[in-house]
Amino acid sequence: MTSDEASSRPTRTLDKGRMEGFSDGVLAFAITLLVVDIALRPPGSPTQQFFHAWPSYVAYLVSFLTIGAAWIAHHGLTDELDRVDPVFLRLNLLFLLAIALLPFPTRLMVQGLEKSADWQRLAAVVYGINLLVIRILLTALTTYARSRHLRKPDVADPDLEEARKKFYYAIAGYLLAIVIGLVVPEFAIILYFVVAVFLFVPFRAVVRAISGRG
Amino acid sequence: MTSDEASSRPTRTLDKGRMEGFSDGVLAFAITLLVVDIALRPPGSPTQQFFHAWPSYVAYLVSFLTIGAAWIAHHGLTDELDRVDPVFLRLNLLFLLAIALLPFPTRLMVQGLEKSADWQRLAAVVYGINLLVIRILLTALTTYARSRHLRKPDVADPDLEEARKKFYYAIAGYLLAIVIGLVVPEFAIILYFVVAVFLFVPFRAVVRAISGRG
Amino acid sequence: MTSDEASSRPTRTLDKGRMEGFSDGVLAFAITLLVVDIALRPPGSPTQQFFHAWPSYVAYLVSFLTIGAAWIAHHGLTDELDRVDPVFLRLNLLFLLAIALLPFPTRLMVQGLEKSADWQRLAAVVYGINLLVIRILLTALTTYARSRHLRKPDVADPDLEEARKKFYYAIAGYLLAIVIGLVVPEFAIILYFVVAVFLFVPFRAVVRAISGRG
Amino acid sequence: MTSDEASSRPTRTLDKGRMEGFSDGVLAFAITLLVVDIALRPPGSPTQQFFHAWPSYVAYLVSFLTIGAAWIAHHGLTDELDRVDPVFLRLNLLFLLAIALLPFPTRLMVQGLEKSADWQRLAAVVYGINLLVIRILLTALTTYARSRHLRKPDVADPDLEEARKKFYYAIAGYLLAIVIGLVVPEFAIILYFVVAVFLFVPFRAVVRAISGRG
Repeated sequence: MTSDEASSRPTRTLDKGRMEGFSDGVLAFAITLLVVDIALRPPGSPTQQFFHAWPSYVAYLVSFLTIGAAWIAHHGLTDELDRVDPVFLRLNLLFLLAIALLPFPTRLMVQGLEKSADWQRLAAVVYGINLLVIRILLTALTTYARSRHLRKPDVADPDLEEARKKFYYAIAGYLLAIVIGLVVPEFAIILYFVVAVFLFVPFRAVVRAISGRG
Repeated sequence: MTSDEASSRPTRTLDKGRMEGFSDGVLAFAITLLVVDIALRPPGSPTQQFFHAWPSYVAYLVSFLTIGAAWIAHHGLTDELDRVDPVFLRLNLLFLLAIALLPFPTRLMVQGLEKSADWQRLAAVVYGINLLVIRILLTALTTYARSRHLRKPDVADPDLEEARKKFYYAIAGYLLAIVIGLVVPEFAIILYFVVAVFLFVPFRAVVRAISGRG
Repeated sequence: MTSDEASSRPTRTLDKGRMEGFSDGVLAFAITLLVVDIALRPPGSPTQQFFHAWPSYVAYLVSFLTIGAAWIAHHGLTDELDRVDPVFLRLNLLFLLAIALLPFPTRLMVQGLEKSADWQRLAAVVYGINLLVIRILLTALTTYARSRHLRKPDVADPDLEEARKKFYYAIAGYLLAIVIGLVVPEFAIILYFVVAVFLFVPFRAVVRAISGRG
Repeated sequence: MTSDEASSRPTRTLDKGRMEGFSDGVLAFAITLLVVDIALRPPGSPTQQFFHAWPSYVAYLVSFLTIGAAWIAHHGLTDELDRVDPVFLRLNLLFLLAIALLPFPTRLMVQGLEKSADWQRLAAVVYGINLLVIRILLTALTTYARSRHLRKPDVADPDLEEARKKFYYAIAGYLLAIVIGLVVPEFAIILYFVVAVFLFVPFRAVVRAISGRG
């Protein structure tokens, strides 16, 4: 590297290996920690309690698929990265903060579904805001990486491309669900589930596999 | 890669490193989280309570060995992999979902053993279904990897081979245990333990080591 | 390596890969575990309880940013390392001990804010001592690595440089906050928050980005 | 590899990377999970409760240093390894089982210290057996790796050498402490602490550093 290049790129760039390891750690623990809050509660026979707890399972599934889809997009992003810089590391930590927080609104959700409509409304809104922030920070990471030329040239990860195309639909879905959550919290949960599945399923790869082109 | 090859393989393939790191994280966390639910409960002297809790230890051991055997087979699978694709990443996440859920039926099992026969029946069945789903998703991963040519040519991992050979026996054992669990839950637990040990022990390597050929 | 060099460097040096993996695991788990202690408590309506819990969120944020900043500095340090030695591994474990302990004073803090002024004083002081020890051990690690020539020649990580420049300010801030905590615990919390943000924000990189030189 | 070599080494050997990643995960979670059981309990003023909980801190420290020392020895072992085989993977999982269990007797210990002498006796003995099993399995791993020629030639890790030299002293210390624990549990705890420090401190490296030869 000549001194000219050095002055035009004054922030030394870093190896991305540990950022991936640490991110994988936080994402893996957050996704596994969700199981702690699933519990059966009286009244009813064992089987009744088991089926009565279905909202816990739905909330568990939404949070699991959301973190899973976030991991896939993050994996796609770092796959494209050539290097990271100090600002990227901080942005990434804020993204991980939003991920690590998700078990809290998930718990509010699970508990709210057994309490009053007021609790459900609060839970639906807080949960939606958390989901929204995760998606926005993920896009901020991608945008920052592109604007600062941290990516390898001529590379486009299919999962990241798909995540970018789905971004506005997901944001619209979350905003709609938050507003609905203020009135009919049960509908909000169904909408969160729809968005989670929408983000998780790789429609293009599925279409390609079915049409036999893969 | 020529443009011809590119069009015949339109799904860009991905580095498998982060998938391994994330999977190791979820598997390691789920296997370590199991300890949280072991607890001694009255009545009795300390020593009586300690020995009285043996069903917790058996359930702990079954879940530990099951996740351990799943990790070994998963390790064997990714050892053979050359690359991953978007569909494989999602299938892998569903497999991790089944793994991350296991602490929940394990807890049901531990608590059920202290409660009524109804609880034990429910726990034995739910637990068996979870164990069954883990094994099926593991085989689905292997089958998908083979059908999509994601594996390195001319490679056969001994642990994965063993897992494939044991597959139908394990499925039969689980189904039998689930049916038995509806009637005599204690027997189901013993059968789950037998299957877990069966999946964990590498019979061929042991035979080879004893016969001194290793 | 000649035998002369071997005798002048009798402690065999080790691969740093697993130390990074293990450290990432502990840091990631500690940072994710913090969420477990966030909880809403009566009295009040759901929304009142949610906003009333703000001190939990501040304590969560301080601990998250502190571990996050420690991870960034540790990442910078290991990025510079060429190799590790047995003493470095032990020093690193003591650093991880201080990190893994942080959820305990964070919990004291969250609970203290709902109890008497006595509890708040205790929590503010214990929390401050833990934060102080984390920073001191991090600097001890850096100093040891330099004095034992474990670093690659001619390398200077920007995050580690920044952490070293901020060291005395952070120590002064913590000591001041501990003393203040003995009298007015609420002020101590605000000061901890200020130090955490101070350690987290990469001022030089931000200035550089704003001035358009990046 | 000729077919002759292939038949003389029929068990295909595996990449050790994922075994290290998974082991680091379990060791890191187990060591971090210990903090969950530290808690202050009435009666007394906040400061009295804080100092009154010292046995929790000692038990925490013993478990942390024990897992830490086990990690260092395991790191030394895998550093020397050239490859792993199916039996090694299973032995390693049993070692991780003993590590992942340690939070349970640690919790017994913490709670026992607040209860009757009977509880303390039980806790001291169970705790000692767990510590003993960890050390024995670690040595079994090393012995197996040597006997099966899994190690790189001409390599000797200083930490692993130290662990091997300390083995019989540690076993003697644990056995003594278990017997003492049946009579005076408080003494057993002190002895466990002494063994943990003995295993953790790298005496040879320290002596070398002090004598200025490093």
